[in-house]
Amino acid sequence: MTERWLDEVEMRAWVAFLDTSNLLLQRINQQLRDDGGLTQPQYELLTRLAETPDRRMRMAELADALVASRSGLTYQVSQLEKAGLVRRETCTSDDRGILAVLTPQGEQALLKAAPGHLRVVRENLIDLLDRDQLVALADTLSQARAHLRSAGNG
Amino acid sequence: MTERWLDEVEMRAWVAFLDTSNLLLQRINQQLRDDGGLTQPQYELLTRLAETPDRRMRMAELADALVASRSGLTYQVSQLEKAGLVRRETCTSDDRGILAVLTPQGEQALLKAAPGHLRVVRENLIDLLDRDQLVALADTLSQARAHLRSAGNG
Repeated sequence: MTERWLDEVEMRAWVAFLDTSNLLLQRINQQLRDDGGLTQPQYELLTRLAETPDRRMRMAELADALVASRSGLTYQVSQLEKAGLVRRETCTSDDRGILAVLTPQGEQALLKAAPGHLRVVRENLIDLLDRDQLVALADTLSQARAHLRSAGNG
Repeated sequence: MTERWLDEVEMRAWVAFLDTSNLLLQRINQQLRDDGGLTQPQYELLTRLAETPDRRMRMAELADALVASRSGLTYQVSQLEKAGLVRRETCTSDDRGILAVLTPQGEQALLKAAPGHLRVVRENLIDLLDRDQLVALADTLSQARAHLRSAGNG
């Protein structure tokens, strides 16, 4: 199968996307490390738990909700459990279910990391763009995300 | 310092960006691993060398040209050297300079990985977007990249 190489506009879009992804993920990981020793996949996982009313999710549900930390979820949860930020419980209403539960220390870690995280996101992406650019970016990348997910990678 | 939380449009743009970055980088790393055992930072490094007329760059120049593999460049080059894809040479015109040189095996590894890489990039991002979307994405993310670089992170 022969592929067309990228033309100038395509290449500019691709390299800008790739560079910004790498730089911003590096920056975010650095901020999270500095503000409490979390990684971006761990932050994503803790955030998902914090968004639920009772601070807990079945491992299988959690896997479906996650992107960055989906692969290696068991490992991620073990690391967070060792750090005291999450604990595992057996689901009483369903023998097969294991729950991941956000601990009070986990909630503290999130609260500590969140302001700096928000600042990095605003300063390096969101606040640089006007309203039309934000809408276009959301639409464009939601298309790509839907494709990536339907292709079985997320 | 109090930060405004993200509103709905800002959140949609941010989450779409973050998810797509994570999913696409995972997909790219998977393809590169399957097609020859490279990582995305290694692919970036080999590509930079391949783009020079004599397949070599000073380590300091290489560091400036890279994004993903910039931090830990010495480690990346050592790994690639062990795999026979790069070798290091002392620069004859400048005693202080160490050159990274793409080997013929390195060139082969790139040629082997490139078609699949291009296919992943086209299928999951570039070919999903029309011309206006590509231009907007390039402009928007070039702004973010310039900001991230000037802020000393790349």
